[in-house]
Amino acid sequence: METVIDTSNQRIDGREADELRPIKVTRHFIKNAQGSVLIEVGDTKVICTAMVEEKVPPFLKGQKKGWVTAEYEMIPGSTNTRKSRDRNRGKIDGRTMEIQRLIGRSLRSVIDQTMLGERTIWIDCDVIQADGGTRTAAITGSFLALHDALSALIEAGKIKAMPITNFVAATSVGIYQGEAIVDLCYEEDSNAEVDMNMVMTESGEIIEIQGTGEERPFKKEELQKMLELGEASIKKIIAFQKDTLQD
Amino acid sequence: METVIDTSNQRIDGREADELRPIKVTRHFIKNAQGSVLIEVGDTKVICTAMVEEKVPPFLKGQKKGWVTAEYEMIPGSTNTRKSRDRNRGKIDGRTMEIQRLIGRSLRSVIDQTMLGERTIWIDCDVIQADGGTRTAAITGSFLALHDALSALIEAGKIKAMPITNFVAATSVGIYQGEAIVDLCYEEDSNAEVDMNMVMTESGEIIEIQGTGEERPFKKEELQKMLELGEASIKKIIAFQKDTLQD
Amino acid sequence: METVIDTSNQRIDGREADELRPIKVTRHFIKNAQGSVLIEVGDTKVICTAMVEEKVPPFLKGQKKGWVTAEYEMIPGSTNTRKSRDRNRGKIDGRTMEIQRLIGRSLRSVIDQTMLGERTIWIDCDVIQADGGTRTAAITGSFLALHDALSALIEAGKIKAMPITNFVAATSVGIYQGEAIVDLCYEEDSNAEVDMNMVMTESGEIIEIQGTGEERPFKKEELQKMLELGEASIKKIIAFQKDTLQD
Amino acid sequence: METVIDTSNQRIDGREADELRPIKVTRHFIKNAQGSVLIEVGDTKVICTAMVEEKVPPFLKGQKKGWVTAEYEMIPGSTNTRKSRDRNRGKIDGRTMEIQRLIGRSLRSVIDQTMLGERTIWIDCDVIQADGGTRTAAITGSFLALHDALSALIEAGKIKAMPITNFVAATSVGIYQGEAIVDLCYEEDSNAEVDMNMVMTESGEIIEIQGTGEERPFKKEELQKMLELGEASIKKIIAFQKDTLQD
Amino acid sequence: METVIDTSNQRIDGREADELRPIKVTRHFIKNAQGSVLIEVGDTKVICTAMVEEKVPPFLKGQKKGWVTAEYEMIPGSTNTRKSRDRNRGKIDGRTMEIQRLIGRSLRSVIDQTMLGERTIWIDCDVIQADGGTRTAAITGSFLALHDALSALIEAGKIKAMPITNFVAATSVGIYQGEAIVDLCYEEDSNAEVDMNMVMTESGEIIEIQGTGEERPFKKEELQKMLELGEASIKKIIAFQKDTLQD
Amino acid sequence: METVIDTSNQRIDGREADELRPIKVTRHFIKNAQGSVLIEVGDTKVICTAMVEEKVPPFLKGQKKGWVTAEYEMIPGSTNTRKSRDRNRGKIDGRTMEIQRLIGRSLRSVIDQTMLGERTIWIDCDVIQADGGTRTAAITGSFLALHDALSALIEAGKIKAMPITNFVAATSVGIYQGEAIVDLCYEEDSNAEVDMNMVMTESGEIIEIQGTGEERPFKKEELQKMLELGEASIKKIIAFQKDTLQD
Repeated sequence: METVIDTSNQRIDGREADELRPIKVTRHFIKNAQGSVLIEVGDTKVICTAMVEEKVPPFLKGQKKGWVTAEYEMIPGSTNTRKSRDRNRGKIDGRTMEIQRLIGRSLRSVIDQTMLGERTIWIDCDVIQADGGTRTAAITGSFLALHDALSALIEAGKIKAMPITNFVAATSVGIYQGEAIVDLCYEEDSNAEVDMNMVMTESGEIIEIQGTGEERPFKKEELQKMLELGEASIKKIIAFQKDTLQD
Repeated sequence: METVIDTSNQRIDGREADELRPIKVTRHFIKNAQGSVLIEVGDTKVICTAMVEEKVPPFLKGQKKGWVTAEYEMIPGSTNTRKSRDRNRGKIDGRTMEIQRLIGRSLRSVIDQTMLGERTIWIDCDVIQADGGTRTAAITGSFLALHDALSALIEAGKIKAMPITNFVAATSVGIYQGEAIVDLCYEEDSNAEVDMNMVMTESGEIIEIQGTGEERPFKKEELQKMLELGEASIKKIIAFQKDTLQD
Repeated sequence: METVIDTSNQRIDGREADELRPIKVTRHFIKNAQGSVLIEVGDTKVICTAMVEEKVPPFLKGQKKGWVTAEYEMIPGSTNTRKSRDRNRGKIDGRTMEIQRLIGRSLRSVIDQTMLGERTIWIDCDVIQADGGTRTAAITGSFLALHDALSALIEAGKIKAMPITNFVAATSVGIYQGEAIVDLCYEEDSNAEVDMNMVMTESGEIIEIQGTGEERPFKKEELQKMLELGEASIKKIIAFQKDTLQD
Repeated sequence: METVIDTSNQRIDGREADELRPIKVTRHFIKNAQGSVLIEVGDTKVICTAMVEEKVPPFLKGQKKGWVTAEYEMIPGSTNTRKSRDRNRGKIDGRTMEIQRLIGRSLRSVIDQTMLGERTIWIDCDVIQADGGTRTAAITGSFLALHDALSALIEAGKIKAMPITNFVAATSVGIYQGEAIVDLCYEEDSNAEVDMNMVMTESGEIIEIQGTGEERPFKKEELQKMLELGEASIKKIIAFQKDTLQD
Repeated sequence: METVIDTSNQRIDGREADELRPIKVTRHFIKNAQGSVLIEVGDTKVICTAMVEEKVPPFLKGQKKGWVTAEYEMIPGSTNTRKSRDRNRGKIDGRTMEIQRLIGRSLRSVIDQTMLGERTIWIDCDVIQADGGTRTAAITGSFLALHDALSALIEAGKIKAMPITNFVAATSVGIYQGEAIVDLCYEEDSNAEVDMNMVMTESGEIIEIQGTGEERPFKKEELQKMLELGEASIKKIIAFQKDTLQD
Repeated sequence: METVIDTSNQRIDGREADELRPIKVTRHFIKNAQGSVLIEVGDTKVICTAMVEEKVPPFLKGQKKGWVTAEYEMIPGSTNTRKSRDRNRGKIDGRTMEIQRLIGRSLRSVIDQTMLGERTIWIDCDVIQADGGTRTAAITGSFLALHDALSALIEAGKIKAMPITNFVAATSVGIYQGEAIVDLCYEEDSNAEVDMNMVMTESGEIIEIQGTGEERPFKKEELQKMLELGEASIKKIIAFQKDTLQD
């Protein structure tokens, strides 16, 4: 791996500032879903499934277009302190809402909805172990599950060509002790001054960018460094996705 | 494997009437929980975690006794047709309720609550792939997760001795095309005339028995055959559990 | 009443081990329902109504079959400590769920759904006084309400013949201080080592059996004794049902 | 019964305009509640229970005053068309809300909250058969249940004297085909031009008055006639309550 | 303003017993709604909107009649102590229910539903500042919003003539320190012995009357005084409404 | 206003690409809240209140720090098509969740929580008319309401100095027909290719940035243009805020 930003400070887990955690993907992890992967980014593990439903939501009816929607949830054992199930609170918490809307928007932006036909692809991201970056791992993984589900639709003769217009992947960047770092683990994330999630395409275009000054506002120069670091890292992740789909 | 009931009819998946599906257990599957296993019974896969909370529910306060409680959920991709999340319906469905109450009762019946001290063990059973027998796999697996969590409590010096008084495991039995069979897969379960879940201890005593004539009432003789078959099978499963804990 | 099992220990309320509490049924208790009974089993009192709706749930549409479904609830004053209404908790508790599913399955198993035609019979069991055995009283009583509602449908010329294929009744059995007893009142139920609900037909076949070792696992011999006792008792209850319907 | 308003038109059920339906009260109807009555007003039947809880709601804590609160519900079989349970809709409907608040206010207005001490009386009104006037029957009946519960508290030495300061009862009046009538049955109520509920004390003072022009606004003269008719009728009901408590 | 009841006691805010607070109405306050007013009655401020939906609720389908329905809510800052949002409690509180049902009934009673055609007018009353009398201000104001929305329908050629059959307005009356007063502000309302809301038409007929003895039952003479005072005051308010619609 | 980016294309409402809509603020709009403003940005109107509660949420207890939290809601008449109330759906929609979390984070990032003491400031943003940019108007306005509430705390002697560390304001930027524009109205927002919300401090540092490629991914150059335009615009808005607080 080439170095994007020179740094001598070692991180909590010994990584360089611009070093991603190891990524591992197990395709066809669940037999019932048309597409399914287990994605592991360091200790973060997410099951992503893509299931096809042969109808669209009411607002799309009769428009000859398809839909991609996502849901996200963490199993109770995924976090250090047991996470109470959403169903027991009778409502979905705000963080979960934000995340699943982000996943849905990210995937829709690289899909030609007309080529998909009048069907819905349900993306489900179930986090079974959480160590930071669950939402970005979910995007990277569910793109692959979506790809597999669409390939299955092609094989089944239901659609003619691949409706995916671009590869998409995501990672987090942040400012930690004044320095820009990539792919924050939970401990880094909890202590970062700035936290930013980036979703980008293969061609380096931005699909979504969400940056928050958790501890303090951040300077435009810091934003620029994070953008640079994020872009270089997402390029690596997309290369990995391409390898994975070759297998 | 010895044959309990003589039969020449092969089953859907080629098993004999008294033949269990292969069982596989991966211990320490999730790093955050004190006990966690992935149990696979044929194509049925359940993540079982056991997490310790250092307090008891209000009704046990001050009684110097502990509590074991269980929750059960299926991820949407676990079933052939995507299963809508409980949280979206705003309520837990009746089947889920029944199952998690069964798991909780089964485990509590082999725990010395006084030895456990004033703490709660939360058992979570998240089904990631469903092919029949998810509740019995959940009991068999969560017993192991519970065992690991309690061993951890002993190692940490929080409890003095193992509060488990007996091994417990579960399986399903049923009447399918007039014949008693064990460990029904989904397709068998959907077509069985009678379906019965059994939870038993190592010594062959019954913790819970729930039999339902789905298609028709069943005869006492059929009940006797199922009891016999269930007992023999649970003995094999408990032997497997013991092997697993040796590793 | 003839004695099934010889016993000299008197029970809390002076009954023999195999002695049922007095049963009283008031038919046509509520004028608005096609079938309605007030059933009293000792101090347990349940209003059971059967109401006809001329449509079926979505999953049965177009199949030329009917449906029977049940709901169960306790009024707040039915228990010693006031029972908070389900509606205030915003969810149905697990016990209620289990019970109403049991009632529904029990009644459906003795109905020829095709003869019923495309209509739903709603069974409602509202407990107005609880002293143990509310679920089994509800089954015994709602069978009668169902019978009356179906007779009304025949009289009205809506169905040609009685869709009931078998009589069904239920009772509880248990192990209390080491001895098998039948029809446990609340105080016995709270202290029983084993509690088992049995639903059987007139011909002695089993519709549902649910046994739980509340305090300890139970032996197969105990199960056999309870089965025997339950069967003999349900025979008596069904005889009583037949008398009631003669009136 | 003396005639308050001269009328020659017979009503649907043959009553005179100023004639109440027969009232029947069964005290001690439910054994678990400190006070409980079954009140029947014509075909309207309501179980009213009064249960004591030895604490007050948060807003009254430490004020040395008690509280009386009411809940109201109809069982599904109480109405001609099956009434779906509140718990299934996940919310209490507006009509139910209005009614239970009315019952609570009516009873609180005749209670010396200081004499009651720091305890709550829970009033539960469960309608088992509805034929108009369920809310007024519930007030008349629950006053009696409350009286019995308070007598029990006196007997138990928990309070020194009866905290009830006045008798209270309720009835409905209305304008039906231009004429003022009392105690409307369901059919009258559905077709009345004006519907008014009155809650009054023994001394003829008003606790609550709620009049609605369902079909058209109503004149002041009509209001006066209804007030007169209601007052005379509530006097009769309170006389009946006094008789009942003598038994 | 002429004096209805002679009184020398000045009120908290210096008003005479029969003196209304100043009323101010801003029409066309919200651009998106067909009718919308900001009504201010003293310090009470309510935004009332009337929006047209070109369909009716299921129970009116095919009857060639329209519907008017109302919702009421207070923003959190409207009260002295912040009012938690209904959505956070997961249910609408009883007071809100009562109020919005009252508003809906009041407006429907002066509408010719047939002339309205098969459409629904949604009335929304959002209280932005509360100082007593929010429900009566809401009725007075939403009548004007409804009038404007219906005028817009006429202008658009959707209905031929004004379906309003009568003007309607509302105010509160009460007994405060033994004296009948009108249009209670929050402080008076909190301390009044009796509180009564009146909804009347231009011709002095009653649409709704709801009187409650908050602190004590009230005498018939007190009721008469309140009725007189309310009628005179509503006449003044309706005169004000007419002026407003001239502008 | 000086021009930041040269452009000759006029916008829908005649503005230049870098031209903000007119902003109007009415302070002390609601008398009950310690701070309250009505902010109008073009046709978008939001009531922002800041109310003080003298306690902190459980997770901050005993830490000698305060908390600022926000809620956001739209009244039904605020949008072209009536917006159903959140309370009726029984859940807060995802968009609302995202917005109120954004408002809370933005304000907390410019507050010294220690200087605030153990109290909570509740920010409520109620949109009464919506024409795009409601969330950024809510941030800009609620900063002023917060400022007023904190000034009131200082005057009341409850806190010693102003805990605000920086001014904060927000606006939206976007790419519309290939060009970067600021402060999008509803019609522009619905058709923009890219939509980005920016929250910045007086010193030009970023608190939050959220950009979404609604129609297509966007280039880094477009991001840079939007950042520039947003920064210049927020500077103008903060100047306006300062003027407002002088009054």
